[in-house]
Amino acid sequence: MKAVVYRGTRDLRVEERDPEAPGRGQVRIEVAYTGICGTDLHIYHGDMDTRVGASAIIGHEMSGRIAALGEDATGLTVGQAVTVMPTRPCGRCAACRRGLSHICHAMNFLGIDSPGAMQSSWTVPTDLVLPLPEDLPLDHAALVEPVAVAVHDVRRGDVTADDQVVVVGGGPVGVLIATVARGRGARVLLVEPDPFRRDVAGRIGVEAVDPTTTDVVALVDDRTDGAGADVAFEVSGSAGGVATAVDVLTTRGRLVMVAIHPRPREINLHRFFWRELELLGARLYQRDDMVEAIRLVASGAIPARQLISRVEPVEAADAAFAALEGGGVMKVLLDLSEGNR
Amino acid sequence: MKAVVYRGTRDLRVEERDPEAPGRGQVRIEVAYTGICGTDLHIYHGDMDTRVGASAIIGHEMSGRIAALGEDATGLTVGQAVTVMPTRPCGRCAACRRGLSHICHAMNFLGIDSPGAMQSSWTVPTDLVLPLPEDLPLDHAALVEPVAVAVHDVRRGDVTADDQVVVVGGGPVGVLIATVARGRGARVLLVEPDPFRRDVAGRIGVEAVDPTTTDVVALVDDRTDGAGADVAFEVSGSAGGVATAVDVLTTRGRLVMVAIHPRPREINLHRFFWRELELLGARLYQRDDMVEAIRLVASGAIPARQLISRVEPVEAADAAFAALEGGGVMKVLLDLSEGNR
Ligand SMILES: [Zn+2]
Ligand SMILES: [Zn+2]
Ligand SMILES: [Zn+2]
Ligand SMILES: [Zn+2]
Repeated sequence: MKAVVYRGTRDLRVEERDPEAPGRGQVRIEVAYTGICGTDLHIYHGDMDTRVGASAIIGHEMSGRIAALGEDATGLTVGQAVTVMPTRPCGRCAACRRGLSHICHAMNFLGIDSPGAMQSSWTVPTDLVLPLPEDLPLDHAALVEPVAVAVHDVRRGDVTADDQVVVVGGGPVGVLIATVARGRGARVLLVEPDPFRRDVAGRIGVEAVDPTTTDVVALVDDRTDGAGADVAFEVSGSAGGVATAVDVLTTRGRLVMVAIHPRPREINLHRFFWRELELLGARLYQRDDMVEAIRLVASGAIPARQLISRVEPVEAADAAFAALEGGGVMKVLLDLSEGNR
Repeated sequence: MKAVVYRGTRDLRVEERDPEAPGRGQVRIEVAYTGICGTDLHIYHGDMDTRVGASAIIGHEMSGRIAALGEDATGLTVGQAVTVMPTRPCGRCAACRRGLSHICHAMNFLGIDSPGAMQSSWTVPTDLVLPLPEDLPLDHAALVEPVAVAVHDVRRGDVTADDQVVVVGGGPVGVLIATVARGRGARVLLVEPDPFRRDVAGRIGVEAVDPTTTDVVALVDDRTDGAGADVAFEVSGSAGGVATAVDVLTTRGRLVMVAIHPRPREINLHRFFWRELELLGARLYQRDDMVEAIRLVASGAIPARQLISRVEPVEAADAAFAALEGGGVMKVLLDLSEGNR
């Protein structure tokens, strides 16, 4: 079988490996599709070498079918369509002890800390496996994990019907947040400088504006009779994005911090005080979020076809990563199924 | 009657005025005591001239007795002990329309935007008047307004029994927050560099540590088996205080932003993401908070006697302000009752 192995900065190799037989409580999955995530790009750029190690199979957004069951792998059947929740909490840290194992301080994240989904045959514990509806196309199902991120973020923001929502940053996660929030009945405005991304948003019916030519705060004030937005999502990772997300909010408005800001950012705390604003960190997802994500993708609420820009064979992994760096694509999937033939 | 009038930076004058007869829906109060607040000091320093105007009677933390009723001033009786909620929302702005009139965008704050409580005879609308229990000493009752601030802040932080709470900043508001949080059953640690303030805290049974000699984060980790604090209150207004309040928090911990930070502050947003932290702005109080504050002061839950460092006659207002600048005092009250004799 084939595996995409990270061997150092900008050095991805597609290698031939032997499938791993499932042990007790494990299953072997023949992977169909694996999406390339921003995290995978960070690894590719060498930004996560201390965590990833020198020779790692990356990837964590996938779909596939059960190929073999280990001992005690109950509740699943060979041939069944599945996806995998790629997070294994430690069970012992302060977060786990507080019942917040989804943000475990010592998380084993499959595709970062242990072998991931960019291999045509993946052996994982059964408790991470989630069944998929049989009529859900497996390429669409590869979006379930990033949709779970969006579901979790929208839950953190407590978005309800008729809320005015502003999503700052129109990459895959931003667009998915916009879609999930709209599904809850919110009015959504996406803020994104890249014309390609705005165009994708427009084609799935999400209004997107360019912050370099539009006064976003004035526009939101205009739409809300001067009140401001109920919820803002900061997904851009930029200083300007943080400022916009703070400035658009109404009294007691909620800012959900989705993006990773490696360095501290200046925040207008006076505005937090004056308007009693709320800033809420949001990370990963809980099992309920994955289940809800499967429901949303299967129901067609997520416009999967329009969000998948390209599907590349596993052998072209390197080219697929390069395409993502170049822009002009939203979601790119690797087709791993060839490795199983 | 006497009034303390702000006439410009560091220029406070005690002037003789005629009492104002109460109009329809108003009452005239003979003021007993008025506390000097950090806001009053800001005014005294000339920092709020654009809002205060050139000739203003300041002050908003008071107690007194009804002296005269205007027409339609029902539900109150002459001689009754009262305090005043010094906030008049506009009723029309976006905050008021959302039912958050306590953080009205165009608030009329008595003692800033209109005449305040540093006058021995104060005429106010009846709907701002709150009756006091007859057995509550009027000097203690002058603490009700700052206690209401603390009650509101602790509510915003959703402090519950056995929570580990860290209060950063041990001035009057910080000490009151610590006291109110302790009253809810929380374990409270106060962080304050000033030895006088730590000493006051210690005398009312609140543990206080010096951040210049104690590793506060390590101490809190030690107390919480490595988990961190459930709630932190930033009351110091300093950059270091913000950093401490972020760094002590456990997973999904809540940081209540009480202090005013006129300039943006750097915030470790990565930690907000990683631990799903929450930052909650908190400003002023609602009527319920005032009612709860009266209950707490009257019940003795607030150690009013230990927190009132000095009571000065109204004629010594200038000296009282200077004493507050010099430190070595917690709460300072002006005795306005002489003006009524
Ligand atoms: Zn991902
Ligand atoms: Zn853990
Ligand atoms: Zn005050
Ligand atoms: Zn208002």
